[in-house]
Amino acid sequence: MMMDELARQVKEASLKLAACDGEIKNKALARLAESLTKRQDEIVRANQADLERSEQENLAAPLLKRLKFDEAKIADVVDGIHSLIKLEDPVGKTLLATELDDGLELYKVTCPIGVIGVIFESRPDALVQISTLCLKSGNGVLLKGGSEARETNRILAEVIADATTAAGIPPMWAALLETRADVDDMLKMDRYIDLIIPRGSNEFVRYIMDNSRIPVMGHADGICHCYVDEDADLKMAAQIVLDSKTQYVAVCNAAETLLVHEKAAPEFLPPIKELLEKKQVKLVGCPKTRALIPVEAATEEDWKTEYLDYKMSVKVVPELDAAVDHINEYGSGHTDTIITGNREKAARFMNYVDSGNVLWNCSTRFSDGFRYGFGAEVGISTSKIHSRGPVGLEGLVIYKYKLLGNGHIVDDYANRSKTFKHRDLGRSSTL
Amino acid sequence: MMMDELARQVKEASLKLAACDGEIKNKALARLAESLTKRQDEIVRANQADLERSEQENLAAPLLKRLKFDEAKIADVVDGIHSLIKLEDPVGKTLLATELDDGLELYKVTCPIGVIGVIFESRPDALVQISTLCLKSGNGVLLKGGSEARETNRILAEVIADATTAAGIPPMWAALLETRADVDDMLKMDRYIDLIIPRGSNEFVRYIMDNSRIPVMGHADGICHCYVDEDADLKMAAQIVLDSKTQYVAVCNAAETLLVHEKAAPEFLPPIKELLEKKQVKLVGCPKTRALIPVEAATEEDWKTEYLDYKMSVKVVPELDAAVDHINEYGSGHTDTIITGNREKAARFMNYVDSGNVLWNCSTRFSDGFRYGFGAEVGISTSKIHSRGPVGLEGLVIYKYKLLGNGHIVDDYANRSKTFKHRDLGRSSTL
Repeated sequence: MMMDELARQVKEASLKLAACDGEIKNKALARLAESLTKRQDEIVRANQADLERSEQENLAAPLLKRLKFDEAKIADVVDGIHSLIKLEDPVGKTLLATELDDGLELYKVTCPIGVIGVIFESRPDALVQISTLCLKSGNGVLLKGGSEARETNRILAEVIADATTAAGIPPMWAALLETRADVDDMLKMDRYIDLIIPRGSNEFVRYIMDNSRIPVMGHADGICHCYVDEDADLKMAAQIVLDSKTQYVAVCNAAETLLVHEKAAPEFLPPIKELLEKKQVKLVGCPKTRALIPVEAATEEDWKTEYLDYKMSVKVVPELDAAVDHINEYGSGHTDTIITGNREKAARFMNYVDSGNVLWNCSTRFSDGFRYGFGAEVGISTSKIHSRGPVGLEGLVIYKYKLLGNGHIVDDYANRSKTFKHRDLGRSSTL
Repeated sequence: MMMDELARQVKEASLKLAACDGEIKNKALARLAESLTKRQDEIVRANQADLERSEQENLAAPLLKRLKFDEAKIADVVDGIHSLIKLEDPVGKTLLATELDDGLELYKVTCPIGVIGVIFESRPDALVQISTLCLKSGNGVLLKGGSEARETNRILAEVIADATTAAGIPPMWAALLETRADVDDMLKMDRYIDLIIPRGSNEFVRYIMDNSRIPVMGHADGICHCYVDEDADLKMAAQIVLDSKTQYVAVCNAAETLLVHEKAAPEFLPPIKELLEKKQVKLVGCPKTRALIPVEAATEEDWKTEYLDYKMSVKVVPELDAAVDHINEYGSGHTDTIITGNREKAARFMNYVDSGNVLWNCSTRFSDGFRYGFGAEVGISTSKIHSRGPVGLEGLVIYKYKLLGNGHIVDDYANRSKTFKHRDLGRSSTL
C-alpha cells in the first residue's frame, strides 16, 4: 500500500477510535497482553532473526542490546499493559461546564489528539509501550522503526492489530510504515500526523525536532544542575549530588553540572570530590573550583554537554542569581535542584529557573512519570507548549468544546434581547 | 540594536517577568490604560501620518479602515484593559499536588510560556490587545507590525514600555522589531520565541504557519458547517442556519456549508433558499440540491472554500455519518453544528466530528471566547496541540513541576529501603 494511503486510513480509523469507550479500549489492551504472551515464541524467533542479521552487519553492541526482545522483556511489557488498564480513561473528562444562558450549556471535554507518529531506534519494546499508551488515550498511531528490527516490528505490529481488532477497536488504528520508508517521509506527513514522539538517542531526537513542522513531544538534551547554596546542609548536599550524578548516569535526569556558592565551596568541594571519585566520576572545573580542588579545566563546551557518563563539570558562583543565570543559559530546561536551608532562596530559585522540573533539597533523579505517580510515562518533554516535564497519558489528549442549545442564535445577544449568564455548572458530565 | 540582541534581551526580561506577582502586573495594566488615554493625541497624530502616507501609497480601502486608530478605538482598547485587570492571574495556579513520600511534595504550577512573537497586519489595536494579554500572563513579547502602521506601532510600543516599566515591570519585556526587519526573520527566532500569534488575513496566517518551526496559535480557515438532520425542528433549523450564515459574514465562525439530510431536504430547502436570498446570500449546491431548488452547481472547490461573504454551499446527504465524513474531510476543525431533536444523533455528531467546537441546536456564531465567558480571547485555535477552540489567558501559560524535599535521594527507592506513597494533597498552594 502507498504510504500516503496508509496514513489516510490510520487517520480515518483514529476518528472512530476517538469515540470508543474506555471499556472496549481496556478489553483490547487485556487481549493484547494475552496475545503477546501466547505468541511470545513467534516474537522471540523474529527477534532472533533480527539479532543474527544485525550481528552479521556489525551493529554496535549497545544497539544490539537494545534490539534484544526476549521473554523477560515481553513480560515487562505485559506488566506495563496491565498497569495501563488500571489507569483512568483520559478521554471524556469534563474540564469546564458553563451555562451561557438558559438552556445553552458549554462543556470543555478531553478527547484524543488524533494520530501520533512514533519514530524509534532499535528498541522494539518502545513500539508496544507507545502503541498501548496511544490506544488507551484513543489515538491512532503510525509506527516507524529502524530496519535492524524489521522482523520484530512486523510481528509486533501484527499482534497488536490482530488482538485489538478482535476486541472491537476499529481496524487500521495502528500501522507500521514499511521499513524502506524513510524517517523523512513521516516527518512530512503533517496532513495526517498531529504529534510525533521520537524514541532514541539525543542526536536522533534532535534530528527529528529540527526536521519536522509537526509538533514533537520529547527532549533532546537533559543538562541537569545541582546548585549547593551557602545555606545548604552540606551533608545533605553531598548525598543529593552523589545520587543525582551516580544513581544512574546514562539517563536524562542525571546531573551534569554542579554549581556551588563561593562561601560553601571551600568546605564542600574537597569532600564531594573524594566521594564522586570513589564512584569513578571525573570532575572538570572553573578556575575558582581549581583553586580549591585539583581537577582539569572545564571548557565552554563542558557547560553545554550532557555527558550521560561518569563525568561532571563544577562551577563556583558568587550568589544564587548567578546560578540561576548559568542554568537558564546552559541548561536544557529539564531538571534542576537547589540545596539550601533557606526557604526564600529555594522559592527564588524555583520561580526563576526556567525548567520543567525545579527541585528543592532532593535529587534530580526524581523527575520521572512513575516517581511522580502518573502511572504511565509517555516521555519527558522540554517543550513549553502543550506538555512539559514528565508527561503522563494527559499529554496525549486535547479537548473540544461541546455547546448544547435549544435553537439559540447570536442575533438575540447582538441586539440585546438576551444577555449571557455565564453560570459555572461545576464539572458535570455531558453527552 | 541588532535584532538578535533585541530578542535576547526580551527573553532575559521574560524570565524576570515570569516571577512578577499579579498585583504588579495589574498596576502596570492600569497605568498603561491611563497613559493611552493621556497620550491619545500623540497616538492619533502618529496614526494620521500612517493613514496619509498609506493613502498616497494606494493602500486598499479595507486595509486603510483596519489601520485607523482613533479616539473611539483607543477607548475600546482601554475598556479591554480594564476587563483584563479584573480577570484572575493565570500564573501560579496549582494544578496538582501530591505527597510522593513523607516530606517529599510535588506541585504542578502554572507559569508563563516565555516569549510570544506577535505578527500582525495593519490593525494597531491588535498590538495593544495581545501585548496586554501577554503581560497579564507574564510573557515577554516581540512585536512585528506592518510598515504601513509604523508610526502608530512605534508610539504604542513606547507608551507600553514607559507605562509598564514605571509600574515595576522589568524593562525590555516588550519590544517592537524594526519595520525593516522581515517577518521571515522573526519566524526563524526559535531560540528566543516560544510561540507565535499571527493576526491578519487567512493567507497571512497560513503563510506564518507554513513557514516557521515555532508553534503558531491561531487558525487559517474557518470552514464551518450546519447539518440539518431528518429529526430537526425545521423552523429552529432555519433560524440557526440564517444566524450562522448572515449574523456577520466576514468572521471565521460564520457558516459556509449547509448539509441537509435527504429526508428533510424537500421540505427544508425551498423556504431556506428564500430566507437566505432575502439576506442576499447566493447558494450553490450539489446535484441532489439542484433537483429540489434552482441554484448554481457547487464545484469540488466550493466545499473547501471559506467565503467570508454572502455565499453558501449546500449538500444533501443520505445520513448523519455522511455529514460527519463531509465535515471531517472538508472542514477546518473550527466549528460545526447539528440541528436535530434526537439526543443520540447529537451525541454521535459531537463525538465523531473532529472540530474544536461541536454544537447542538445553536448557531456556529457562538464559538467565541467572550460568548464562552472567558473574559479575554487570545484567539481561536484549530491546532490539536496545547490549545483548541477559543483560547483565553490559559492558552498563554504552561506549567512547571516543583518538588520539595528534605534530602531525598532516589537510591533509597531503588534499593527499596523506602517506597512511594503518592498521596493526593488536593490543590494546596506551594512556594
